[in-house]
Amino acid sequence: MTGGGDAPGLNAVIRAVVMTAQNCYGWQVVGIRQGYDGLLTPETPVVSLDPAHVQPLLTRGGTILGAVNRGNPFMHAVKYADGTVQYVDMAQNAVERLEALDINALIVAGGDGTMAIAQRLIALGARIVGVPKTIDNDLAQTDVSFGFDTAILTATEALDKLQTTAESHHRVMVMEVMGRNSGWIALKTGVAGGADVILIPEIPFDVERVCLHLMEMRTPERNHALVVVAEGAAVVGGQQQYYIKASGLMDARLGGIGYSLGNSIAERTGFDVRVLRLGHLQRGGSPTPHDRWLATRFGAAAVHLAARQQWGQMVALQGNDIVSAPMAEAVKIKRVDPSGEMVQMARDLGISFGDA
Amino acid sequence: MTGGGDAPGLNAVIRAVVMTAQNCYGWQVVGIRQGYDGLLTPETPVVSLDPAHVQPLLTRGGTILGAVNRGNPFMHAVKYADGTVQYVDMAQNAVERLEALDINALIVAGGDGTMAIAQRLIALGARIVGVPKTIDNDLAQTDVSFGFDTAILTATEALDKLQTTAESHHRVMVMEVMGRNSGWIALKTGVAGGADVILIPEIPFDVERVCLHLMEMRTPERNHALVVVAEGAAVVGGQQQYYIKASGLMDARLGGIGYSLGNSIAERTGFDVRVLRLGHLQRGGSPTPHDRWLATRFGAAAVHLAARQQWGQMVALQGNDIVSAPMAEAVKIKRVDPSGEMVQMARDLGISFGDA
Amino acid sequence: MTGGGDAPGLNAVIRAVVMTAQNCYGWQVVGIRQGYDGLLTPETPVVSLDPAHVQPLLTRGGTILGAVNRGNPFMHAVKYADGTVQYVDMAQNAVERLEALDINALIVAGGDGTMAIAQRLIALGARIVGVPKTIDNDLAQTDVSFGFDTAILTATEALDKLQTTAESHHRVMVMEVMGRNSGWIALKTGVAGGADVILIPEIPFDVERVCLHLMEMRTPERNHALVVVAEGAAVVGGQQQYYIKASGLMDARLGGIGYSLGNSIAERTGFDVRVLRLGHLQRGGSPTPHDRWLATRFGAAAVHLAARQQWGQMVALQGNDIVSAPMAEAVKIKRVDPSGEMVQMARDLGISFGDA
Amino acid sequence: MTGGGDAPGLNAVIRAVVMTAQNCYGWQVVGIRQGYDGLLTPETPVVSLDPAHVQPLLTRGGTILGAVNRGNPFMHAVKYADGTVQYVDMAQNAVERLEALDINALIVAGGDGTMAIAQRLIALGARIVGVPKTIDNDLAQTDVSFGFDTAILTATEALDKLQTTAESHHRVMVMEVMGRNSGWIALKTGVAGGADVILIPEIPFDVERVCLHLMEMRTPERNHALVVVAEGAAVVGGQQQYYIKASGLMDARLGGIGYSLGNSIAERTGFDVRVLRLGHLQRGGSPTPHDRWLATRFGAAAVHLAARQQWGQMVALQGNDIVSAPMAEAVKIKRVDPSGEMVQMARDLGISFGDA
Repeated sequence: MTGGGDAPGLNAVIRAVVMTAQNCYGWQVVGIRQGYDGLLTPETPVVSLDPAHVQPLLTRGGTILGAVNRGNPFMHAVKYADGTVQYVDMAQNAVERLEALDINALIVAGGDGTMAIAQRLIALGARIVGVPKTIDNDLAQTDVSFGFDTAILTATEALDKLQTTAESHHRVMVMEVMGRNSGWIALKTGVAGGADVILIPEIPFDVERVCLHLMEMRTPERNHALVVVAEGAAVVGGQQQYYIKASGLMDARLGGIGYSLGNSIAERTGFDVRVLRLGHLQRGGSPTPHDRWLATRFGAAAVHLAARQQWGQMVALQGNDIVSAPMAEAVKIKRVDPSGEMVQMARDLGISFGDA
Repeated sequence: MTGGGDAPGLNAVIRAVVMTAQNCYGWQVVGIRQGYDGLLTPETPVVSLDPAHVQPLLTRGGTILGAVNRGNPFMHAVKYADGTVQYVDMAQNAVERLEALDINALIVAGGDGTMAIAQRLIALGARIVGVPKTIDNDLAQTDVSFGFDTAILTATEALDKLQTTAESHHRVMVMEVMGRNSGWIALKTGVAGGADVILIPEIPFDVERVCLHLMEMRTPERNHALVVVAEGAAVVGGQQQYYIKASGLMDARLGGIGYSLGNSIAERTGFDVRVLRLGHLQRGGSPTPHDRWLATRFGAAAVHLAARQQWGQMVALQGNDIVSAPMAEAVKIKRVDPSGEMVQMARDLGISFGDA
Repeated sequence: MTGGGDAPGLNAVIRAVVMTAQNCYGWQVVGIRQGYDGLLTPETPVVSLDPAHVQPLLTRGGTILGAVNRGNPFMHAVKYADGTVQYVDMAQNAVERLEALDINALIVAGGDGTMAIAQRLIALGARIVGVPKTIDNDLAQTDVSFGFDTAILTATEALDKLQTTAESHHRVMVMEVMGRNSGWIALKTGVAGGADVILIPEIPFDVERVCLHLMEMRTPERNHALVVVAEGAAVVGGQQQYYIKASGLMDARLGGIGYSLGNSIAERTGFDVRVLRLGHLQRGGSPTPHDRWLATRFGAAAVHLAARQQWGQMVALQGNDIVSAPMAEAVKIKRVDPSGEMVQMARDLGISFGDA
Repeated sequence: MTGGGDAPGLNAVIRAVVMTAQNCYGWQVVGIRQGYDGLLTPETPVVSLDPAHVQPLLTRGGTILGAVNRGNPFMHAVKYADGTVQYVDMAQNAVERLEALDINALIVAGGDGTMAIAQRLIALGARIVGVPKTIDNDLAQTDVSFGFDTAILTATEALDKLQTTAESHHRVMVMEVMGRNSGWIALKTGVAGGADVILIPEIPFDVERVCLHLMEMRTPERNHALVVVAEGAAVVGGQQQYYIKASGLMDARLGGIGYSLGNSIAERTGFDVRVLRLGHLQRGGSPTPHDRWLATRFGAAAVHLAARQQWGQMVALQGNDIVSAPMAEAVKIKRVDPSGEMVQMARDLGISFGDA
């Protein structure tokens, strides 16, 4: 089962699970469609998966099992004939459905929300192991997960493209990337793409300081600039949401912080500013070799976890090693350390975080 | 000199001009920076260009000569000490500057605006030949120009990425591409990327029909959809601008028709909709081989045009041949034929243009 | 049916045929597997193709129908129990098989060989229209076919990669590309990738002159070089095969002219030389947007040709238009014009063809 | 100074060194060209490097300082007028040259050979810190170095392209990748690209077993195969060199093990086999975001090492951390563990290593 937003590599996990389960244990594998919701629909939710079927999945983005952002058997949305919706605890039904389907072990690939639900189902008797999925790289128990590398590649290629047109037109280009709670994508993309300013949730910024930096750095040799901003970047002494509303320019749901920031810079500096909001490009496409490799290792390791009946454990990467960790730990968020080596290195290169 | 917005391949034109001019005629080449404005600045506007210097430019996006969107010697913006700006006809000064710099022939790469100004300067005695530049593919005298192929590649790769996530989440993805007056990028990208709906300026659309199509086409096998909309797409019986304001959602300058359209679809159909506005990604990056090839042929041919003193002519591609055409003709716009083979082919595939 | 070597875009042709046939005419479409051989096997050779099935084919390289390089019903290889093979004329059987399968029109995508056989089958009563396929761009009746653009992109990206390492190590890099009878891939790739030497079948070369050029062009600013050689490049006053054997280095079937040429250059000049033979990389991968677009137009147009019962005709691109042309003409080879604008343009840039 | 073969990311190291040195310490930075040889040439070997100059280097492959594969001041090749060459110990001259050039700290990016020489120069009084460079990923002290990820991306994209044509033609595709002493590139590429057979130096293979596996795995659903072989793959009970000569097909220097293996498979199985030797493609091109990120961290950290006068130390990656390690340790080779998790995971997927 795959849960939550999609990430490049989910299909590679599915493929590795099927091939390993069959080759090592002779198990038959089925896929549950539409996340936890699939367990609660009257129709049969499973699709049979065999090696020949999954072989071509390695290079394919997305997930053939479908992904549902907010499925939760403890608060299952039931629609009545009169159009009203009620949220009902159907967790016990979900566990019974697993039994009825003769599923001896459930491998769930998902983020913190998916893992939290899995744990509660385990308490009700379900046999589940996990594969961590986070495109933002913000799960505490694994050094990195699949999807992150692909997102970085997409974002950096975009920044490379903005660079050439910024240079020709002496523009400030603002690129908004994913990262509601953590700035990993913004930080790595910004350094890899030669950004001048990187704004992340972990380091509140002051738009005045951003503008000051942009004006001070402008020279005849480099009279353009690149700004990378995480969607969840926060302003000094305030809230992200406050900042956006204060600028009075647009609804955050529609435009995001990138447009709002771009307008502020244009107003304050007079520079020619353009904005790109990368959005769902970052979740799409064929996974990079690194993500295929990691997703495959995770998928294979999850099968062995299940064979050892390590319910409640999930696979993880620590250093070069595949290890297992309690799902309970997965809900902890891993954030960029504002005083760590990575941020310091970026500062040493002359990159501003808008805070000084 | 390069004028107007940048396009991948401008640097390849510069390179081909320098190498051909030196190899075939022994000419010395200089580059004028910042478009027509460069001719009117007190400092020397030229940069010496030699083959060794330009050799690595083939693969580089943008233009090393800089591009200025609205330079016009007939209405040159002069800033006074008190901050006021006045527009002055300094065309004669520009022509004299060319003489003073001992420039015997000027090769200008630009779009319809740049070509129109060039013609008026020729009337004042300037010796100019042209290289057509249009990323939108909307110049009447050339089958295609450099930059278009790169824009199509970028846009189609983006659509490919949106496809995988649309499929996993059963979403409608709306992608807004360039094309204020013509739908070439939207049409070619839409067909190449497997879009379900393509909206272009040449075929006014009705948002109700778009939604109807999206609802009718949804099947268990394909319960997602891709919509490609040109920034200048027009609504039936109205104006593009009217449509956007009527939806009451956002300022068109900020968000563009894509967001506005996406909201309308979400409201009317209840589908899960996401929007991507490709924006400047389409102008950036290393040119495709095809654009390098075409830009190189154009640059070389422009030198030969200048050697034959064909002032007022520009190079063009017709079929497989490099020809020359009067700059005066370049201002005519080439639009998609709503009843031509290309649109009909797209309809035959089941693609909707929102008009029926 | 697809015949001959594969080319990126074949699957897009299949997809367009199925969708257009169903949308415009309500036809049912089947695919014949393994080219002409499929018509002569005892088992049923056809696979049912419906729109939902072919929808994802747009981006996929290769052909789902399989390709057979040397299938020919007029000389069908029959294997006997004792291991001997005899070639038998089974063309009539092939035509009868089409009838038996209730196939009213056959659309064949293939090169000159496939077209020639199709014509002879038409003389026996078969109803066939064609889609030209040539990755080498050497069919006379169409300006270009799908696959060529993808091959050029792959080859140019490879040359870009060789360029960086050539530059760092002051090396001569030799890259061998496809093109037995024509130099289109070598010429376009060489110009687009900034090659110093381009060797093609149409312009016999002298290895001494190649070396002379490499030595003369070497300067402190550019002390490396890129050589692109078509697999069918010919030497002055001799045969390609002769040249390779004379060098005494390796079997041409294994190594190709690239290795042989590279060794000759190293021996004669003392330069550090490296060789890359691109080989089948050029036929693989997802088609470029341009190839998907062209393949789709071809597929749709072929259906309309069949609807009009234009047996013996094939679709073609002339300028911007899709036209039809007699298959008989497809066997004519289109070669690079040694004295045309394209070669002259390359010479003007300083590129050597090894002939002067 | 950069030494040895080039690797994508070397220019990013140079850029990070210059920017960090200036921003953090106000140091002036010069580059030594042509590796150690640059220190022993009569002309001045250094080029001044300032931030504006190096800013665009981030995305560029190769090294602007040039790379020399076999420079060694302890055995410096001196050419005499009569053409003879003698190898002379000029290490002391090299150290003195550093003094004469007023170089207070030398940062050397290179592999095991470069590090070993650096250590001996330190013993003579030179002040050197190191940045590990290995595209093969075979240096013991660092988890990975820049260049490896780019090589994997290039190799996997190539395998993806071979896959589509293999599938269409039911072929066995053999791809030879780098790796003389270690199979990291082959292993990671093979798993990421869906190979059926992976042959590496650490696990001697038997060509009979390879063929057996290829014959057994062939089914109507997957009647093609992908084989990835490291250039240094060894045969059971023998030497790599022996194996190649025994096949009697070609000189290993020219063709490599890939061609030889491909011929053996074709002869023994009768399958249609094609071979691609990736060669220098793997060292070229713009570094991936990951390699730019790592190279930048290494470059910045090396400057801090020099500031702390940690002569004889090199930077390294361990887990997520940048650490320092003695150069002396860098000469140890890191090889794939034949009984480790990675190989076992590949076996579990059904991949054969030709040994069983």
